[in-house]
Amino acid sequence: MTQPGGMNGKILRVDLTTGKAQAEELDSKDVQKFLGGRGLGAALLFRELQPGIEPLSPQNKLIFSIGPLTGTGLSGTSKYAVHTKSPLTGIYLFAVSSRHFGPELKKCGYDALIVEGKAAEPSYLLVTDDKVEVRKAAHLWGLTTDHTEKFVQREVSGSARVACIGPAGENLVPYACIINDEGRAAGRGGAGAVMGSKNLKAIALQGSQRVTVADADAYKALLKRAVTEIQSNPRTEKIFQRYGTSSTVSSMNEAGIMPFRNWQMVRSPIGDQISGDVMRENYLICSTNCPPCITKCSKLCAVKEGPYAGTVSEGPEYETIYAFGGCCEFADFGAILYADAFCDRYGLDTMSTGVSIGFAMECYERGIIGPGDTGGLELQFGDHQSLPKLLHDIAYRHGFGNVLAEGTRRMAEQFGQGSQDFAMQAKGMELGGYDPRGVKGMALVYACGPRGGCHHAGGRTIPQEVSSGQYDRFTPEGKGALVKDSREQRVLVDSAVICSFTSVQKPTLAELISAATGFDFSLEDLYHLSDRVSNVERAFNVREGVRREADTLPRRLLNEPLEGQVVELDTLLDDFYAACGWDPTTGIPTRQKLHDLDLDDIANQLGLV
Amino acid sequence: MTQPGGMNGKILRVDLTTGKAQAEELDSKDVQKFLGGRGLGAALLFRELQPGIEPLSPQNKLIFSIGPLTGTGLSGTSKYAVHTKSPLTGIYLFAVSSRHFGPELKKCGYDALIVEGKAAEPSYLLVTDDKVEVRKAAHLWGLTTDHTEKFVQREVSGSARVACIGPAGENLVPYACIINDEGRAAGRGGAGAVMGSKNLKAIALQGSQRVTVADADAYKALLKRAVTEIQSNPRTEKIFQRYGTSSTVSSMNEAGIMPFRNWQMVRSPIGDQISGDVMRENYLICSTNCPPCITKCSKLCAVKEGPYAGTVSEGPEYETIYAFGGCCEFADFGAILYADAFCDRYGLDTMSTGVSIGFAMECYERGIIGPGDTGGLELQFGDHQSLPKLLHDIAYRHGFGNVLAEGTRRMAEQFGQGSQDFAMQAKGMELGGYDPRGVKGMALVYACGPRGGCHHAGGRTIPQEVSSGQYDRFTPEGKGALVKDSREQRVLVDSAVICSFTSVQKPTLAELISAATGFDFSLEDLYHLSDRVSNVERAFNVREGVRREADTLPRRLLNEPLEGQVVELDTLLDDFYAACGWDPTTGIPTRQKLHDLDLDDIANQLGLV
Repeated sequence: MTQPGGMNGKILRVDLTTGKAQAEELDSKDVQKFLGGRGLGAALLFRELQPGIEPLSPQNKLIFSIGPLTGTGLSGTSKYAVHTKSPLTGIYLFAVSSRHFGPELKKCGYDALIVEGKAAEPSYLLVTDDKVEVRKAAHLWGLTTDHTEKFVQREVSGSARVACIGPAGENLVPYACIINDEGRAAGRGGAGAVMGSKNLKAIALQGSQRVTVADADAYKALLKRAVTEIQSNPRTEKIFQRYGTSSTVSSMNEAGIMPFRNWQMVRSPIGDQISGDVMRENYLICSTNCPPCITKCSKLCAVKEGPYAGTVSEGPEYETIYAFGGCCEFADFGAILYADAFCDRYGLDTMSTGVSIGFAMECYERGIIGPGDTGGLELQFGDHQSLPKLLHDIAYRHGFGNVLAEGTRRMAEQFGQGSQDFAMQAKGMELGGYDPRGVKGMALVYACGPRGGCHHAGGRTIPQEVSSGQYDRFTPEGKGALVKDSREQRVLVDSAVICSFTSVQKPTLAELISAATGFDFSLEDLYHLSDRVSNVERAFNVREGVRREADTLPRRLLNEPLEGQVVELDTLLDDFYAACGWDPTTGIPTRQKLHDLDLDDIANQLGLV
Repeated sequence: MTQPGGMNGKILRVDLTTGKAQAEELDSKDVQKFLGGRGLGAALLFRELQPGIEPLSPQNKLIFSIGPLTGTGLSGTSKYAVHTKSPLTGIYLFAVSSRHFGPELKKCGYDALIVEGKAAEPSYLLVTDDKVEVRKAAHLWGLTTDHTEKFVQREVSGSARVACIGPAGENLVPYACIINDEGRAAGRGGAGAVMGSKNLKAIALQGSQRVTVADADAYKALLKRAVTEIQSNPRTEKIFQRYGTSSTVSSMNEAGIMPFRNWQMVRSPIGDQISGDVMRENYLICSTNCPPCITKCSKLCAVKEGPYAGTVSEGPEYETIYAFGGCCEFADFGAILYADAFCDRYGLDTMSTGVSIGFAMECYERGIIGPGDTGGLELQFGDHQSLPKLLHDIAYRHGFGNVLAEGTRRMAEQFGQGSQDFAMQAKGMELGGYDPRGVKGMALVYACGPRGGCHHAGGRTIPQEVSSGQYDRFTPEGKGALVKDSREQRVLVDSAVICSFTSVQKPTLAELISAATGFDFSLEDLYHLSDRVSNVERAFNVREGVRREADTLPRRLLNEPLEGQVVELDTLLDDFYAACGWDPTTGIPTRQKLHDLDLDDIANQLGLV
């Protein structure tokens, strides 16, 4: 079998315990079976990790991976995936981020970077093509991500591409993220804490190799078609170029889907004060992109007056607005922008941070915790006076920040008194910003999400349910197949890797992947591949003990009606498992299913009969 | 007369009212008489400004100037001077700053940039060699200096060199500074507010021209000698490379010269908590420089723990430590570093900011102001809890910050009740960090300082008085001539322009200037030139009404003994005026003196007989 195009055929493995680095061959069958990015990373993670290891132990690994489209000049192909076992959820974690770091890994000559072991002292990794150095980083320990990136570049070269952690990662906050290229986040699930547990402050890449594809002529022609598709899709200009994801605030608030007051209500009048229009009119400076993307979804914003004047951030995305504007009910867009900026600097996932604060606010409102617990801080919904201190205290684990730093699941375990019922998480992962009581498919996205209660895995169910006219969003009917389909579309995008905001049509994407790899993938082949990846992800979690009973949601969503609706979880699960080919009692993929996906090795590992 | 070497022979004049720009010839006689930088700027400012204009009116001008050594590859020659009429003092102002901006002005083909008038809307100036654009900057208004520089570079080019103002300059804080190249400040006296009054957010320079000198071979040989002198001077390694100016804390505290508690005391035990050793051991990350300087006096520091963790700043210099650690008695070096970092971002002079807060603390201690005035803030010496808010509020003129923003002189006018006696300023300029009761020459440096009560003009008196063995620091004897000599040494350095921390010996400096310009300057000639510049500066202030009675100090220094000492100001002034050739009654330079300095035109303008 020939080496697939678009890939380097090499994996770099760095053992921080021994300081040794070696390049290993990438099995070309892995590209054919799992593509790259999320798919490749899932397969590698399953193989590399021993079951049951502690996420913050040296036995955990960090696997950075890129895909056949990475850095090929196509809009949206500046992404990488990172895989590890999550300290927040204890299960499978992938996270994607973008801009220069992923393409630079490809230019260094690798398709994946596996970091294992633990450095004896704070360190950073410098990869310059085939030269690998583990350098001392004690002087950088304690620094925020913006300064860390600058200092590393000062020491290495201004053109080095840097992914790093902030104090949150150092202090093992289980929802600490990895930040690369001035504020792009591999956000969810705590990959930053895993990096911190390895004493790894940063990774700097400097590559000099050319990115090539198997059929350059065909690829070039397809690029033109892709650009036309992107430009002619009204979402590109009307939504992404104008608002980024902030436009979602108005539509989700109007539809009664955006949660407020820690999911106690929807349709908040605050929605109008934190909308995409408010951002555009009062905060937007300019749009920016991950080169060479033409969609330019990223909004550089600044606060010009009030207590947060002087704050600048790229974003915030809808999910950040949901977490701070929705869950915490901050009606000041400036406060949300501040939270966005400082979560990036401290290396905190904005979503878990905001949802955790919102949860504490409800506990405070109910008297479950009081000023004695919070160090005297009044945690009232809507009051953002303590926000700067809270964010700092979470990252550095001072005072009550040390409690918030544990995330909603562990806080609820600590607080007790029924607070578990409204700790808005699934498998420990704080939920995305869509209330499934108003859009039932999302219940499956959260309950069965491969990395826990995140919207990412299947967020495309929402437009289907809300505006396609093909579904009743308030019923469970048809949602199993819809969510499975939505998940697989996302797996494909994450494995190519290409940004999900890039409006390249799926048949064109299949042709691009084929031209890049030299494999003749039909779109059907690729969805089959995505299904395979989804099952590897599920198998990882099954190996860690996940069964049907773990595929659940906070009781608030199951028992507390909102606009007359609760989530009919059992009906939804039955439907979804059937669509997936998973055992209805246990939620484990059947042997037949895994066999159909050419995953017999995994079926054997799971001991399936 | 031939064009002097090391200079371009051109001045760029930009009228923001009309948007017109034109290049004008630089009179080569001006180089021969005033050299460059501070000297040239003083001469131009005297000519360009009408007497009595309002500093924040369109009639004021900003004059940026470089000198014959600027950008010539010699260590320490990355400086520029900026001249204007100060909104803080109402008199002559020059300020110097360094790194890339000055050399870039030279590479653009100019020796000076005169900015006059007022733009109709927020703007920034872009100079690319002979192309000049006034661009819109409404989107940048309200941004801190770090973000402003980045955004301008994003719009222009990453290699553009940017000087800009922060919110303090926009909001006309009379001690707002200009910041260039990531935190280098033209700090004192409010040039940033003048920029703000002109609606000028930033100046971006992109030059492509080579810097040349008159006699390149001679200059090259001298460069070698200069490097040897710098490297062999123990100050370079022992002081500047190890500590920057922070080493001064210990020596000045031990000598009883560093002021604490708004100059109520010296020899504070706090000195040990904010010393250069504390900086080195707990905060220093690395040394940095203004390329190509080999002295590397600048200390990149970070706070790793406590409430200011994550703060990074270049510095702080001794004067900043004095202002916040001394005047405000903040015993936490992290707080001082925070103040340093955020003064830079907001575009505030650290010295005036810290001294103003310290003054308010004493007023609060004495009950002259109370919580009703401060918006409930407790202003206690040593308590830095409100520091982040105070700095923000000064820059954005919120609440009590709007009072602090006026500086000590105007605050004392407002507060009354004898607070003038301990408002630590001279001519409106907050004093430098050396108590003249312990080092009498400094009384003259402050009382007669060309820009008011700053140490800069003659700070080299201190080592002479304290450690040369030639002077009794507690007596007025001989201080007139000493201070005059110290002032002239500084004028020479500021006019070359070369950094005063560069240990090039003065005879070598004279040879360097001669080789650069092609003029045959002896060191004596150059001191004569410096005396001329000093008298132009004095003449500017005389024209604005400054007479002997304005050459005074806060009553605290004249009447309140410290370690048994007060300042004998009259004796000192008599001695100094005699050394300078100024009229003993009025403090005006005599006609004879101005004639001897080839300044008859100025004598005529002042109407001297």
